[in-house]
Amino acid sequence: MQTFDTVIRNARVVTAADIFTSDIGIRDGRIVALGLDLEAGAREIDAAGRHVTPGGVDSHVHFDQPTGDGSIMADDFLSGTTSAACGGTTTVIPFACQQKGHTLREAIDDYHRRADRKPVIDYAFHLIVTDPTPEILRDELPALIAEGYTSFKIYMTYDALKLSDREMLDTLSVARSEGAMVMIHAENADCIAWLTERLLAAGHTAPRYHATSRPMLVEREATHRAIAFAELVDVPILIVHVSGREAVEQIRWAQSHGLKVYGETCPQYLFLTADSLGCDDSFEGAKCICSPPPRDKANQQVIWDGLENGAFEVFSSDHAPFRYDGPDGKKAHGEAVSFDQIANGIPGVETRMALLWSEGVRTGRITPQSFVALTATNAAKLYGLYPRKGSIAIGADADLVIWDESRTFHLENAKLHHNVDYTPYEGMHLSAWPALTMSRGDVVWDGEKPCGDAGRGEFLPCARPDPAKPRRRKTELPL
Amino acid sequence: MQTFDTVIRNARVVTAADIFTSDIGIRDGRIVALGLDLEAGAREIDAAGRHVTPGGVDSHVHFDQPTGDGSIMADDFLSGTTSAACGGTTTVIPFACQQKGHTLREAIDDYHRRADRKPVIDYAFHLIVTDPTPEILRDELPALIAEGYTSFKIYMTYDALKLSDREMLDTLSVARSEGAMVMIHAENADCIAWLTERLLAAGHTAPRYHATSRPMLVEREATHRAIAFAELVDVPILIVHVSGREAVEQIRWAQSHGLKVYGETCPQYLFLTADSLGCDDSFEGAKCICSPPPRDKANQQVIWDGLENGAFEVFSSDHAPFRYDGPDGKKAHGEAVSFDQIANGIPGVETRMALLWSEGVRTGRITPQSFVALTATNAAKLYGLYPRKGSIAIGADADLVIWDESRTFHLENAKLHHNVDYTPYEGMHLSAWPALTMSRGDVVWDGEKPCGDAGRGEFLPCARPDPAKPRRRKTELPL
Amino acid sequence: MQTFDTVIRNARVVTAADIFTSDIGIRDGRIVALGLDLEAGAREIDAAGRHVTPGGVDSHVHFDQPTGDGSIMADDFLSGTTSAACGGTTTVIPFACQQKGHTLREAIDDYHRRADRKPVIDYAFHLIVTDPTPEILRDELPALIAEGYTSFKIYMTYDALKLSDREMLDTLSVARSEGAMVMIHAENADCIAWLTERLLAAGHTAPRYHATSRPMLVEREATHRAIAFAELVDVPILIVHVSGREAVEQIRWAQSHGLKVYGETCPQYLFLTADSLGCDDSFEGAKCICSPPPRDKANQQVIWDGLENGAFEVFSSDHAPFRYDGPDGKKAHGEAVSFDQIANGIPGVETRMALLWSEGVRTGRITPQSFVALTATNAAKLYGLYPRKGSIAIGADADLVIWDESRTFHLENAKLHHNVDYTPYEGMHLSAWPALTMSRGDVVWDGEKPCGDAGRGEFLPCARPDPAKPRRRKTELPL
Amino acid sequence: MQTFDTVIRNARVVTAADIFTSDIGIRDGRIVALGLDLEAGAREIDAAGRHVTPGGVDSHVHFDQPTGDGSIMADDFLSGTTSAACGGTTTVIPFACQQKGHTLREAIDDYHRRADRKPVIDYAFHLIVTDPTPEILRDELPALIAEGYTSFKIYMTYDALKLSDREMLDTLSVARSEGAMVMIHAENADCIAWLTERLLAAGHTAPRYHATSRPMLVEREATHRAIAFAELVDVPILIVHVSGREAVEQIRWAQSHGLKVYGETCPQYLFLTADSLGCDDSFEGAKCICSPPPRDKANQQVIWDGLENGAFEVFSSDHAPFRYDGPDGKKAHGEAVSFDQIANGIPGVETRMALLWSEGVRTGRITPQSFVALTATNAAKLYGLYPRKGSIAIGADADLVIWDESRTFHLENAKLHHNVDYTPYEGMHLSAWPALTMSRGDVVWDGEKPCGDAGRGEFLPCARPDPAKPRRRKTELPL
Repeated sequence: MQTFDTVIRNARVVTAADIFTSDIGIRDGRIVALGLDLEAGAREIDAAGRHVTPGGVDSHVHFDQPTGDGSIMADDFLSGTTSAACGGTTTVIPFACQQKGHTLREAIDDYHRRADRKPVIDYAFHLIVTDPTPEILRDELPALIAEGYTSFKIYMTYDALKLSDREMLDTLSVARSEGAMVMIHAENADCIAWLTERLLAAGHTAPRYHATSRPMLVEREATHRAIAFAELVDVPILIVHVSGREAVEQIRWAQSHGLKVYGETCPQYLFLTADSLGCDDSFEGAKCICSPPPRDKANQQVIWDGLENGAFEVFSSDHAPFRYDGPDGKKAHGEAVSFDQIANGIPGVETRMALLWSEGVRTGRITPQSFVALTATNAAKLYGLYPRKGSIAIGADADLVIWDESRTFHLENAKLHHNVDYTPYEGMHLSAWPALTMSRGDVVWDGEKPCGDAGRGEFLPCARPDPAKPRRRKTELPL
Repeated sequence: MQTFDTVIRNARVVTAADIFTSDIGIRDGRIVALGLDLEAGAREIDAAGRHVTPGGVDSHVHFDQPTGDGSIMADDFLSGTTSAACGGTTTVIPFACQQKGHTLREAIDDYHRRADRKPVIDYAFHLIVTDPTPEILRDELPALIAEGYTSFKIYMTYDALKLSDREMLDTLSVARSEGAMVMIHAENADCIAWLTERLLAAGHTAPRYHATSRPMLVEREATHRAIAFAELVDVPILIVHVSGREAVEQIRWAQSHGLKVYGETCPQYLFLTADSLGCDDSFEGAKCICSPPPRDKANQQVIWDGLENGAFEVFSSDHAPFRYDGPDGKKAHGEAVSFDQIANGIPGVETRMALLWSEGVRTGRITPQSFVALTATNAAKLYGLYPRKGSIAIGADADLVIWDESRTFHLENAKLHHNVDYTPYEGMHLSAWPALTMSRGDVVWDGEKPCGDAGRGEFLPCARPDPAKPRRRKTELPL
Repeated sequence: MQTFDTVIRNARVVTAADIFTSDIGIRDGRIVALGLDLEAGAREIDAAGRHVTPGGVDSHVHFDQPTGDGSIMADDFLSGTTSAACGGTTTVIPFACQQKGHTLREAIDDYHRRADRKPVIDYAFHLIVTDPTPEILRDELPALIAEGYTSFKIYMTYDALKLSDREMLDTLSVARSEGAMVMIHAENADCIAWLTERLLAAGHTAPRYHATSRPMLVEREATHRAIAFAELVDVPILIVHVSGREAVEQIRWAQSHGLKVYGETCPQYLFLTADSLGCDDSFEGAKCICSPPPRDKANQQVIWDGLENGAFEVFSSDHAPFRYDGPDGKKAHGEAVSFDQIANGIPGVETRMALLWSEGVRTGRITPQSFVALTATNAAKLYGLYPRKGSIAIGADADLVIWDESRTFHLENAKLHHNVDYTPYEGMHLSAWPALTMSRGDVVWDGEKPCGDAGRGEFLPCARPDPAKPRRRKTELPL
Repeated sequence: MQTFDTVIRNARVVTAADIFTSDIGIRDGRIVALGLDLEAGAREIDAAGRHVTPGGVDSHVHFDQPTGDGSIMADDFLSGTTSAACGGTTTVIPFACQQKGHTLREAIDDYHRRADRKPVIDYAFHLIVTDPTPEILRDELPALIAEGYTSFKIYMTYDALKLSDREMLDTLSVARSEGAMVMIHAENADCIAWLTERLLAAGHTAPRYHATSRPMLVEREATHRAIAFAELVDVPILIVHVSGREAVEQIRWAQSHGLKVYGETCPQYLFLTADSLGCDDSFEGAKCICSPPPRDKANQQVIWDGLENGAFEVFSSDHAPFRYDGPDGKKAHGEAVSFDQIANGIPGVETRMALLWSEGVRTGRITPQSFVALTATNAAKLYGLYPRKGSIAIGADADLVIWDESRTFHLENAKLHHNVDYTPYEGMHLSAWPALTMSRGDVVWDGEKPCGDAGRGEFLPCARPDPAKPRRRKTELPL
C-alpha cells in the first residue's frame, strides 16, 4: 500500500498536454501517485476547483552577477530564489559568466560560492562563454558539459561579452559535438555603437533613446546571422528574449526550413512598449531599460501570436535586478548620465508566471497546457532537467503551484519579494496568483509569505538536451 | 484502498507532453491510477521496457460510405474498426455524408444504421455538408452540433460534394456561431476538370495521370481560398490531407498571421510519391490513386518538417477502402477506364500508427510525445473527444497501445485485417507494431489476433472543440 | 534635306529609359528627327527648359458604357477624350463590354458606333468577356484578336460580369493560344455579397461601408486565384487596379517565381484612403466609391514602393465617370440608398498624369523615365500599340506632352473638362500640368483650352503583345 | 544643315526602353541626330536589318590589379580594354584598390599610372576601400568623390580587403552624406575560413572544394547583413555578383520593403555550375574558381528570373584574368596546392555581351531593351556616367555595337583578345557577336580585328549617381 508524505486533493492537474482532476501523492519530494481517492497523506492539501501546474522553470535569470560597471545586482541567490518561489517558480537557471581572460571553471566555482547556502529552490547554471580560447573549447567546455553544465549563452553584443563570428562558429561546433544547447543574445553590436554615438553627439541621452539605439533591424540582423551559423554548423540554438516581428519572421523561416531554431520571449515584450522608457526625457524611463527594448503594440501582438503558433518554446523572465534609487542601481552614475551608461535590465522573476496565467490563460489567448509548456516543460527539456523538472508526472519532483483565481491581485512592488525597489508592472490588476508553491514536497510559498529555508535548494546538474530531435545534415562535410 | 480490474506494470507511459515509468491502474474501463507499486489488479499486464501510448484517434476514415459511381467501400464498421484496433487505433471518426437534396439528419440516421452492432472500438461522426440549404444551416446543423456532431467537412472539389464559395461562407458562419470545427478538402474543382479534359483528349488516361491532373497549385489555390474565407468569417478551420510545400506555406502564413488554421497530413504524403501511381501506363498504379496525389521526395521532406514545426496538428489515415481486384473496387469499370473513373482512395487505418512510430519516432525525426499529439491527443481535442480520449490521464478511457519494438515487422497485406486486397506499403520493414491494443480496458488486439467483439464500440457524442483558443477579431463587423 | 511640319526646340526629351536635350522634328504626324539644330519647321514650338514626355496611354478607362442599373456614364467619347487630352493623355483604351447572351462582335460594333465621330485622340478597345460560350471562344474571340482586339478583361466579381473559375480557365486558354493579353479584376464576388448582406442587415448602409464590404483579403484571395490559373494555363496576365499590400505580395510572389504576372495601379490608391468614403454616414463619401476601395496610408506607401520596385507595369486612371448630383449618377437612386446600389467608379482620366508627375517625379519618388514607362510605354507594349504609341522615337506618332512645372496648379473640378461634377482630388496643389498636348502632330490642348476636333481621333487596331517574353513551361501537358 | 562624320544607316536602334529603325548621325564622337534619310556623312556604315545597341558598360572588371599572393593578373589596361572592345564593351570601370595602411589617393595615382597610355576605350575607376581610417573617411574619400570617383566597393570577406561591421557602417555613412554608390561583396569571411579549415584538415583540397567552402548560406548571411546596414544608414547599395536563390530572396525582400538595394549578376551564374569546378579532384576545375562560386541548374534559373523581374540592375563580367598555365596564374603555386591558394577569378570581359544577347535575347528570355538596360544603361546611371554613356540618345557618346546575328559563333579562346589562356565558355555556340564596336565615333572592333589605338580611351570622372531616387527615411535620427 502506498504511503504519502503529502496528498494534494482534487486538483485540476495541468501538464503541457493534459488537464484532468486527480489527487497528487507525494513521497520523498517526488510525485509518486496520481488518481482519485488516494490513501491519506501525512499532510493533506485541498485543491478542489484549483488548477495545479508544474512549478515554473525560469531558464533566464541573472542573480548576483558582477556587472563591471559600478552597478550591483540587487538580488542574490537568496532574495532571487525567494522571489521566484513566491511567484510560482521552483527552478531557476542563472548564468555563470566567464570573465575574459579567465576560465569557465573559475566562473563556475565563483557562482557556486555565490549560491552557497542561499537558494530556497533548485537551480542549475548556464555558462556564458565570453572568451573561447582553443584550450577552453577543446578541454574545459567539453568537461563542464559532461559535468552537467550543458547549456551556454553567447552574446553578439556588449564589448565585455560578445564573440566574433569565428568564435561563435567554433563555440557552436563544441555544442554540436558535445550535445550542448546554445542560447544566443542576438543584437548587432556595431550597429548599436554606431547609433549610440550619433544619438549622444546629438544630445539624445535620455533613457528613452536606449530604445532608439537598438531598433528592430539590429535584432533581425543578428538573428539571421545566428541562424545561418547554426545552419552551417548543424546544431540547435535558442534565440533568447525575442522582441518583435522581424526577429520572429527569421525564426519562423528557419523552422519552416527544417532547422532546429528555438525562440524565447519574456513578459516585457507582451506588456511594455518603447513608450515605457518615457515619452519625454525624464529619468523614470530607466526602469524599463532592457535589451532588446520593448517595441510597440503591433509587435506585442506578434509575440502573443508566436506564443501560440510555436515560434516560441520558452517564456522566461530575463530577471536582471537593479534598484532604481540608491547608489548601485539605475542611478549608479546619477540621473544626468546617458542611456548607455544606465544599468541594463529589469526585474521579473516573481511576476512572470502570474502575468502569463492572468493575461494569457484566463483571457483565452493560450491554453493552460500551453502555459505549462512555455513556463516549465519546454525549458526543462531543452536544458536537460526533464523529467525531473517541468511536469506533473510519476517520478518527477513535487514542484507544484496551486493557483488562486478567485480574486483580483493588484500588482504592487511592496508585495513582491525581490530586492528591487520597483516593478515595471506596478498597478496592473491580475486575475491569478500562486496560492501555494511547493518545491520537492516542501511548501516554499504559502500564499502569504515565503517559507523556504535558505540553502534548501539543490544544485541540478543538467543532462544533455532531449536527444530525440537530431537535425538532418544538409551538407556532406567533415564538420 | 484502490482496486483495479487491470494493472499494466512498469510502462514507459507517453503522453503528448511527457514520458515516465509508471503502472497504470484501470477500473471500469477508465484510467484511475498512475504510480509505481499499485495494488494488484484482477488482471496484470507486464509492460516493462515498453512504450505505452494512448490508443490512436483516427479522425479521417471512410467506412461503408456510398460512392454513387458503382464502386463499393470494402470496409464496413466491423472490418474497418477491427483493422483500426489491430493497428493501435481505438477511436475512429468516419464521415456521415449528406446526399444532395437530402437532409443531414437522414445521413446521420443512415450511418448509425450502418454502424449498428458492428464497431469493435468507439466512434464518432463527422458530417459532410454537401447541400447547405438555408433551412439546414439555420435549424438542422445547429441542432446536430448540439447533439454531438460538432465537426463537419466541406469539399472544394468533386461534383457530388463540393460547395460554392458562398455556400462555404454560409457554412463556416454556422461553425463560428455554433462552435463547430470545419475540415476542408482543398482542391480547385475547375482546374482539375480543365486539366482532366485536356489529358483525356490527348489520350493520357492511365492511372498515373491522376497525379498530373491535380498538380500542387490546384491544392495551393484552394488552401489559400479556404484560409481567406476562414479569416473573413473569423473561424478556425482544419485543412485535411496536406500533400506538400505550397499548401504548407499557405498554412504557415496563416498561422504566422494569427489565424487558427490547422493542418492534417497522412502517411501517403510521407511514404508515397507520384511515381507510386506508375512510371508507365500500367493499371497497377490505380492502387495509389488518392486526392491530393502523393508528390515527390522533396515534398515528403516538407511534410516531415511540418510534423515537427507545428504546421500539422493531426496525422490521420484518410482510409478509403477499395479493393484492387474484383467487380466493385479499383477495377469496377475495368482496366481500360480513364484515371478519373477509378475509385479514389487508399487503405491505411491499420498501418498509420506503426508507420509513424517506426519511421518517425524510432528514426529520431519526432519525439514519442509528438507522436502521441499527432496520432491521438490533438485530434481528440480538436473534435471534442478530449479528455475522454487521446491521452493517458486520470479519468480518461483506458484506450492504450503497448508497443513491440523488439523485432522487425514485415508489412504484408496478408497480415492486415481490413477487407482490402492490398496495402500501398507492401514490403516495408517496420521497427514497431502494437503488441496489444486496449479499448476501455478491453484487449481488442493481443498482438496476434483481433479480439474485440462486434458492437462493443460505443458511439461518442462530441463536445465543441477546445474553447480556450478564441480568434481575435480583426474586423469590426456584425458577423 | 529633311523638312518638318513642326519642330519642338530644345526639349528635355524623356523616354522610359532616357532623358536628353533635343529638338523633335515632326512630319505627317510622326516623329521623324531628333537632334539639335534641326532645320526649321513650318511651325516652331519652344520647349527650352521643359520636359517633353510621350503622350499618356490610359489603358483603363470607361466611356459611355451602359451600366444596366439606372446610372449613366457622364463621359462619352467626346468629353472623355477631350478630358484625357487636356490632362496629357493621347491614347485611351476603353472597354467594349459584352452583354451576357450577346456576342463580342455586337459589343465591338456597338462601341464603334458610340465612338463614331467623337474622339479627339486615338483609341483602341479592350473587350470585356462576360459570356464565354464555346462558340465564342472557338471562333469569335480568335477572330477579333486577329482583327486587332488583342486584349480583354475578365471579372471575378459583379453578377453581370463575372466568370466562373472554369470560364476563366477556358478564356485564359484562348489568350494563350492566340497571344492576347488578359486583364483581371480580382475581387471575390461571394465574399463581397456575404459581407454586404450582413452589413445591410445591421443597418450599415452608408457609402463608407462600401470599403468595409470589400476588405483587402477579398482582393488578395482573387489575386492569388487568378495567378494560380495563369500559372496553370501558362499565360501572362495583368491584375488591374491593385490597392494594397496583400495583393502586391501575391504579385511579387508570382514574379519571383518566374511567372509573367503584371500589375496595374491607379491614382486613387496613392491619394485616397477608406476615410475618403467618409468618417460618418454622410452621402458625400459616395464620390469616392470605387472597387477595390482605397485602403489606408500604409497601403499607399506599399503602392508607391510597387511603382518603384517593378510590382507595377501600368499606372492607369480606371476613369469611371458618374456625376455626383443629378438623376443619373451617384444619386440615381437617391441618398437613402445603400452603398451597394450607388454607381461604382470615380473620374480621373484628366488628372492621372499630372498627379504622378507632381507627386511622384517632382518629389523624387520616381524618375521621369519611370513616369514615362508607367503612364505610356509599358501600356503601349503590353497592349500591342508599341512602337506607334508610348515613346518618343523615330517613326512613332507625334503624341507628346510639354510640361509646365513653373507654377502651382490648384486642382478644381471647374478647371477640368470631363462631364463629371466633381473630382476626388479637389483642392490639391500640384507642381505640374501639361502646357501642351500633341496628338499625331496636332495640338489638342494648348495649356488653356482643348483644341482637338471631335472625330479626329483614330481607331487603333492592336498587335499582339510583345512576343519577346515567352513563359517557360512548367508542366509537360498537352495544354 | 547638319553635317556628320559618320552616319550609320537604317539601324534597328535599341535603347533600354525602345526599339526603332533610324539612321544615327555622329559628329565629334557624339550622337547628334536620329532620323531616317539623314544627310550623308563623311563615312557611311550600313546597318540595315541589324540591331545597334549602346556599347557595353562593364562596371565590374579587374585589370592589372596586384594580388599580393604571387599570382599576376594577365590583362593590363591594353589587353583588357582591347578584349572588352572586341566583345562590344566601350566603357569599363575597373577597381583602384587601397592597400591597407595606405591612402586611397595612392591607389588612384597608382592605377592612373597603370592605365597610362594603354586603354583603347573609356574608363572610370571604382575605389576599393579596405582601410577606412577616420581621416580617410572625413577628408580623403569625400574629396575623391568630388573629383569623380563616386563609387566604391567594400568587401565582407578576404583578409586583405574586408571591413568590420563598424567600418562598413562608417563607410556607408560617407556614401550617404556624399552621395556615392557602394558596391558590396557579400560573403561571410569567418564562415568560409571555418569551413576551409575543416575541408583542408579532411584532405579535401581539390579545386572543386572551393565551391564547398562557400555555400549559399555564406552569401545569404552577408547579403542580409549588408541590407540591414544599408537600411540603418539609409543609403542605396548594390550587391555584386549574386549567385543564386537565397541571396536573390534577400534582395527582393529589401526591394519589396522600399529599400534601395540593387543587384548585379554575371555570366558565370547563368552558364556555369559547381560541377564546372570539377566532379573529381583534377586541377582543371581551377579554371572556374571564382567567388561566389557557381551553384546549380535551379539557381541558374533563379538568376534568369531575376534578370527579368527586376532583382538585378546590372549584368557585369567580374573579369578577373589569371592564366591557367604558366608561373603566375592558376598554377602559380603548382597543382598540388589547396583550393584556397589558387588565384581566384575568371575571365569574361569579351564574352559577356554576346553570351547574353545570344542566350537571353535570341532565346526570348529577355527583350533587347532589357539587354541594353542590364549591360549598359543601368550601370551608366548607377555609377554617374549617364547620359554620356549607356544609351543611344542625342548628345551621348557614339559608343555603339552593331550586331551580327546572321551566323553561329563558335566560342574558342583562340579567337578572344584577352591575355588569358582559356575561357570558361570554350565550345559554346553563340547566335550573335558584335560585327562592329564604335567608341566615340571610332571603330575599335571591325568584326575581325581590334582597331583601337592604345591610349585613345579617356578617363571618365563620374558624377554622383542619379539623384532622383531618394530613400524615404524610416527613423527620426540625427544620422
